Amino acid sequence: MSTNIKSRGYAAKDTSGVLSPWEFERRPVGDNDILIDIKFASICHSDIHQMKGDWGTQQYPQVPGHEIVGIVAAVGKNVTKFKIGDRAGVGCMVDSCMTCESCTHGEEHHCDNGATVFTYGAPDKTSPTGITQGGYANNIVVRDHFAVHIPEHISLEKAAPLLCAGITTYSPLMNAKVKQGDKIGVAGVGGLGHIAIKLAVSKGAEVYAFTSSAKKTEEILALGVKEVIVVDDIAKLKPYKGKLDYMISTIPIQYDVAAYTSVVKRNGHFTQVGMPIGFNITLNNLGLSISRVNYNASLIGGIPETQEVVDYCADNNIFPDTQLIKAEEINEAWEKIIKNESGHKRFVIDGTSF
Amino acid sequence: MSTNIKSRGYAAKDTSGVLSPWEFERRPVGDNDILIDIKFASICHSDIHQMKGDWGTQQYPQVPGHEIVGIVAAVGKNVTKFKIGDRAGVGCMVDSCMTCESCTHGEEHHCDNGATVFTYGAPDKTSPTGITQGGYANNIVVRDHFAVHIPEHISLEKAAPLLCAGITTYSPLMNAKVKQGDKIGVAGVGGLGHIAIKLAVSKGAEVYAFTSSAKKTEEILALGVKEVIVVDDIAKLKPYKGKLDYMISTIPIQYDVAAYTSVVKRNGHFTQVGMPIGFNITLNNLGLSISRVNYNASLIGGIPETQEVVDYCADNNIFPDTQLIKAEEINEAWEKIIKNESGHKRFVIDGTSF
Ligand SMILES: [Zn+2]
Ligand SMILES: [Zn+2]
Ligand SMILES: [Zn+2]
Ligand SMILES: [Zn+2]
Repeated sequence: MSTNIKSRGYAAKDTSGVLSPWEFERRPVGDNDILIDIKFASICHSDIHQMKGDWGTQQYPQVPGHEIVGIVAAVGKNVTKFKIGDRAGVGCMVDSCMTCESCTHGEEHHCDNGATVFTYGAPDKTSPTGITQGGYANNIVVRDHFAVHIPEHISLEKAAPLLCAGITTYSPLMNAKVKQGDKIGVAGVGGLGHIAIKLAVSKGAEVYAFTSSAKKTEEILALGVKEVIVVDDIAKLKPYKGKLDYMISTIPIQYDVAAYTSVVKRNGHFTQVGMPIGFNITLNNLGLSISRVNYNASLIGGIPETQEVVDYCADNNIFPDTQLIKAEEINEAWEKIIKNESGHKRFVIDGTSF
Repeated sequence: MSTNIKSRGYAAKDTSGVLSPWEFERRPVGDNDILIDIKFASICHSDIHQMKGDWGTQQYPQVPGHEIVGIVAAVGKNVTKFKIGDRAGVGCMVDSCMTCESCTHGEEHHCDNGATVFTYGAPDKTSPTGITQGGYANNIVVRDHFAVHIPEHISLEKAAPLLCAGITTYSPLMNAKVKQGDKIGVAGVGGLGHIAIKLAVSKGAEVYAFTSSAKKTEEILALGVKEVIVVDDIAKLKPYKGKLDYMISTIPIQYDVAAYTSVVKRNGHFTQVGMPIGFNITLNNLGLSISRVNYNASLIGGIPETQEVVDYCADNNIFPDTQLIKAEEINEAWEKIIKNESGHKRFVIDGTSF
């Protein structure tokens, strides 16, 4: 296994936001690595942002994709976590220092040595292309620790979105200790938001969904929410002042954060998980001082918690709403996401079509 | 008492930030009002911001000042809270609806009907000048509910800064339940910060003061802090990562909030009390997602809590560091504050000099 692995995927070649087929090589399967034959890879809005350079200059060609599931096809000699034929998933990171305080406490995404390696576009000396290449491809080589097991009682297609959208929403909801009867707000109902809703509903919470899109009302109600609030005017938030125990916002652009926090009870918490361009959000401190709500931000989660969300969703029949596409339809799907025409369903790419 | 009250003060006449003597009238002492002969009024940075129009267009002439203490000189016929000769203080507000949920629960500064009337520059039909006029003057007429008692065991001069700087820092520290042995950070050591330090020290906390000004080190140590961290480079925060239980920031300008939150422990809280121009602060959500710290903002406090901080400081010998000036020295004092040359001492204007 000391030769490079040949891979076929879809890559961005520039900042245009258009992907095209690309053949490339991955590193050989090392002693601690596994090779995964990718069965499905789903599309995250972050893929689009990063390929277009919204979060900094990129090296191209670059293969996006960090919601990856498949079957283990080879294992390095030290690997005990997986065997050939296992169902495995890979999310937003593929390596870290593994020795620091954060890494040894299941927070590999916040490695104290800054050694977290993200799944695509990160400098990577072990990669023949010099950067990590993501999951819009027929296979991937990854350190075993950074893959999780996918239980038999969830389909691979439904498991894919859990690797980013699932953990991104699960982690803050668990941190907020959401429980039976809590009134939980979810702002923004796309890929992230609809999973947040399903997770909160599964915990017995009364969920209030806030969307700017009136035409999504029916599909959101079908997710089991108590109420859909169409915020076509910020004044629509007023009747909900102080009503909620906790709120999670997946709105990925600048918005009136203080106004949204006002629907949470005094001293309650509000978590931002949508990452806006440049990562910055401007807050009105006067508004925030009136709501007295605590604002925080959350980014994915560590590997143990990623395994936990996959197991939790399998055990509780929480399946993301997905739409299967072929590789050649990726550009069309991206267009729909950019134009906000895709509804809340996650596009999942059929791995056999690469 | 049905005639207007003649008053002499120092007013801004335009956005220049320069004050000059002005004679004006206040409303007659109404049935629920008291007239206070002002003995001291101290200078808050907000006075300067508002007079210069940093927080919105102002009507002039306008008398600033919302840290006001004096002696009750007249009372309306319904007033039982005060009698002539009492020591009284007025802070940032002088009226509200008094009937809403917030007002009836001691949160008059967050009146649900938006009827909080701030001490200067607020539209006020009862005022002969059409707006409220503040405490840089020889007297003030105020609804009795909005004045607090100043105990005998604190001098009026030392009590003045408690009416804004005191309550502004006391309220979030109490909300954070600061207690013996807690590690508390205070960022920015001016008028607000030095009182925050004294309050936290009085609760038995181990206080870490963060300042950009190395030359303040000695005077800050004298306030009883455990350590002074001179943040002339944001990297100076690194060794303190996750060390503190809670932090209060009085930095009144845009700064790297996420970097400062990193010194608080995961899931800890961080309160912004300095109000920047336009009230907006831009946060880096990536940084905030790494610290997992909760950011909130706080603005003054209600009347019961304002009485509480005055009593607490009197009882515990917590006296703001002050420097007495005459009215004619106000402009010079403002200059020093603007140029950040005033140290942490609060300028207190001698009321007899108006
Ligand atoms: Zn993602
Ligand atoms: Zn690490
Ligand atoms: Zn003030
Ligand atoms: Zn009210």
